[in-house]
Amino acid sequence: MQDTFEQDNSQNLLSDISHALSQGMFVHVRNILHEMSDGDIAHVLESSPSKQRHVIWTLIDPEFHGDILEELSEDVRNSIIQKMNPSMVAEATEGLDTDDLAEVLRSLPDETYQAVLQSLDEQDRHRAEKALGYEEDTAGAIMNTDTVTIRPDVTIEVVSRYLRLRGHLPEATDVLYVVDDQDKLLGTLSLAKLVVTSNPATLVSDIMEEEAETIPADMDESEVAKQFERHNWISAPVTNEQGLLLGRITIDDIVDIIREDAEHSMMSMAGLDDEEDTFAPVIKSTQRRSIWLGINLITALLAALVSSAFEDILSQLAVLAVLNTIVPSMGGIAGNQTLTLVIRAMAVGHVAPTNVRWLIIKEFTIGLLNGVLWAVLIASVVALWKQDLLLGGIIAFAMLMNMLAAGIAGVSIPLILKRLEIDPALAGGVILTTVTDVVGIFAFLGTATWLLSA
Amino acid sequence: MQDTFEQDNSQNLLSDISHALSQGMFVHVRNILHEMSDGDIAHVLESSPSKQRHVIWTLIDPEFHGDILEELSEDVRNSIIQKMNPSMVAEATEGLDTDDLAEVLRSLPDETYQAVLQSLDEQDRHRAEKALGYEEDTAGAIMNTDTVTIRPDVTIEVVSRYLRLRGHLPEATDVLYVVDDQDKLLGTLSLAKLVVTSNPATLVSDIMEEEAETIPADMDESEVAKQFERHNWISAPVTNEQGLLLGRITIDDIVDIIREDAEHSMMSMAGLDDEEDTFAPVIKSTQRRSIWLGINLITALLAALVSSAFEDILSQLAVLAVLNTIVPSMGGIAGNQTLTLVIRAMAVGHVAPTNVRWLIIKEFTIGLLNGVLWAVLIASVVALWKQDLLLGGIIAFAMLMNMLAAGIAGVSIPLILKRLEIDPALAGGVILTTVTDVVGIFAFLGTATWLLSA
Repeated sequence: MQDTFEQDNSQNLLSDISHALSQGMFVHVRNILHEMSDGDIAHVLESSPSKQRHVIWTLIDPEFHGDILEELSEDVRNSIIQKMNPSMVAEATEGLDTDDLAEVLRSLPDETYQAVLQSLDEQDRHRAEKALGYEEDTAGAIMNTDTVTIRPDVTIEVVSRYLRLRGHLPEATDVLYVVDDQDKLLGTLSLAKLVVTSNPATLVSDIMEEEAETIPADMDESEVAKQFERHNWISAPVTNEQGLLLGRITIDDIVDIIREDAEHSMMSMAGLDDEEDTFAPVIKSTQRRSIWLGINLITALLAALVSSAFEDILSQLAVLAVLNTIVPSMGGIAGNQTLTLVIRAMAVGHVAPTNVRWLIIKEFTIGLLNGVLWAVLIASVVALWKQDLLLGGIIAFAMLMNMLAAGIAGVSIPLILKRLEIDPALAGGVILTTVTDVVGIFAFLGTATWLLSA
Repeated sequence: MQDTFEQDNSQNLLSDISHALSQGMFVHVRNILHEMSDGDIAHVLESSPSKQRHVIWTLIDPEFHGDILEELSEDVRNSIIQKMNPSMVAEATEGLDTDDLAEVLRSLPDETYQAVLQSLDEQDRHRAEKALGYEEDTAGAIMNTDTVTIRPDVTIEVVSRYLRLRGHLPEATDVLYVVDDQDKLLGTLSLAKLVVTSNPATLVSDIMEEEAETIPADMDESEVAKQFERHNWISAPVTNEQGLLLGRITIDDIVDIIREDAEHSMMSMAGLDDEEDTFAPVIKSTQRRSIWLGINLITALLAALVSSAFEDILSQLAVLAVLNTIVPSMGGIAGNQTLTLVIRAMAVGHVAPTNVRWLIIKEFTIGLLNGVLWAVLIASVVALWKQDLLLGGIIAFAMLMNMLAAGIAGVSIPLILKRLEIDPALAGGVILTTVTDVVGIFAFLGTATWLLSA
């Protein structure tokens, strides 16, 4: 007992391991790893550069390979599995929970997938195939089938005897499921209720919770996570359309989904994969990021093309070239604030048809207020700096126009993308920047051409 | 039973309520709300524009006010509490769990805080003051004190009798805590273990889990959340330095912390508060966002100032003005990718002193590879478009320099900020953009001045 954590416990472990490895003290590393939880080992693997990662993996007791694989993020898991042969993977995943087994299998490259599936023993293969029958990222794919079921017409005494005979309950079991002889879910009986019930002759049906809400097997996992959050569940039953009990989902799997969903938007907005491995090899990372840079080069060239339409006025007045970046930049920032807020609100389900109009009007109004504020400010700065009132007026007008465009684009782009079933977090930023760049340049250089050109 | 969810159940509820409100059907709304869970009501409140939100609040049975307040995000909660008088708040929070009560109190403005504290009944005030004695965002502040404790030297039969006499267990109780007469934590006994133990004469000490890991009361809540994630806990005991049991933390409170932590980086990167209310009134939102825009205006002006040092060459060659935005823009995107990756890696604890050097070298190398790739590409585009080989060479050189700067800045800025105890997610992006803007402009216009000026 009293194995109290230090705040930086895991960092210490990491540096111990890293130091020992560099000294070639492999036995010592093996001993450290032996004392660690699966989650901590997964953390160490995720925090290690790819070469060191593979050395550590070989030092881990193969008995724990499966549980650790399940804890790893997809990218890191794949990098490890690629170096294992299929029979080793099959051995490592033996005895995993059905949902975890299916998750590992799903993330395998196609060739390995079939080979591993064939190497599994019959029971595991059967379980896995059942879980793989549900679409990825649905309740069916993340559920476990290890439910403990009881009948409604038996007494508490019978239930207690049954549990003692059983001798062991699956991990994170907080309720027993009450089903009829067709496996139709009738209610739940929590262990907490069971242990406080005094009369052993009480019938299950008298004290079971009938109002239990169930998760349909085809519900999207993100929606499942939202339900868990809203209802503070620890576990929830999964049923099919006929109300038959198929399995249960436990909070530990939900926690991962909540983190992934929350991180998804942030990573996508920078053009990164949510599971992007910080310590992936250089070439792999370069390839992945270059796609995003390529798309952005096109938008940068587009902005340059717009500017180039105004080469005449730019060659007359170099001061316009100097100021030309301010308006697009401010528009990009303001638009990005709105975009981020809307993307998050959509992710947590706060945006609905009933409040969209309100939201657009709100962001338009903010754009107007911000536009006026920054127009006045930038006009004063420019008028003083360049001693030119008209120039101040021109940039003020451009600022106002671009702030309005930013507000409207910031709300409408994610809404339109979502309707087109394109991930707003991924594509929203690029499109937004294109809009604010083009509007900003047009408004500034266009007005300048009109008012200033000789 | 079989109250199966539709995927868009909550959206339907939201539009029903919104429609009914617009028709003045308040009784109908009250009935809908009566059937909803606290979490769902909180969701409806968070998805409603501020005026409608207050109307809905008045239609909710005051009995549930406390539980709903606890489910709301801080911003939305404050907007509602501001319209309640202190005695109403005190009444609403009556009977809340200690941690939830303390959380509501902490988020109150100072004046209201004292008034509400005075309006609480003595027992609640005592509980609240105890929880408020722990620093905000620590294990002590989020724990509940409703632990069920047992002694090691009693039999299972005695424990069972005690539980039946007790008649009710606190929510989310999955284990009983085994303590000595000083309240020192000796181990845990799970309900799952209790119900499967056959021999009623078995001693608690024989079957209790002695290896239970405990959370120190002063551990930061984000670190607590990481421990929960890594160990798949449903609850964990909180102890003081002497190992005395103070309370327990349950997974439902952890889930909120995980989401908030994950969202924090994304929101901060856009200069938004993590709890920013999408449906806050316009003026409030405008004020909040304008600070961020002000900071960014300064960086935009700084970039303009750098450009203005090159007004000579810009006035000679307008083509430079047209191309001047490409290199800073690409540097900003590349740097932002690195920055985002590092911020996330730091948030989940993957960055440690042992791997920092590796990470810097990696990102520098990616910058080099990306730099070469995009330099060649942009050189070809510009050489073809403007029919000028030398100009292509100049922009290629600037691109390479800025990509290297972006890689180095993307890793080192968050590391330095963290050492200075400044939130990298909040300040990182602005500083990064300033670096990539200045380096990009200097490299491009500087080289151009050197090679092209007449």
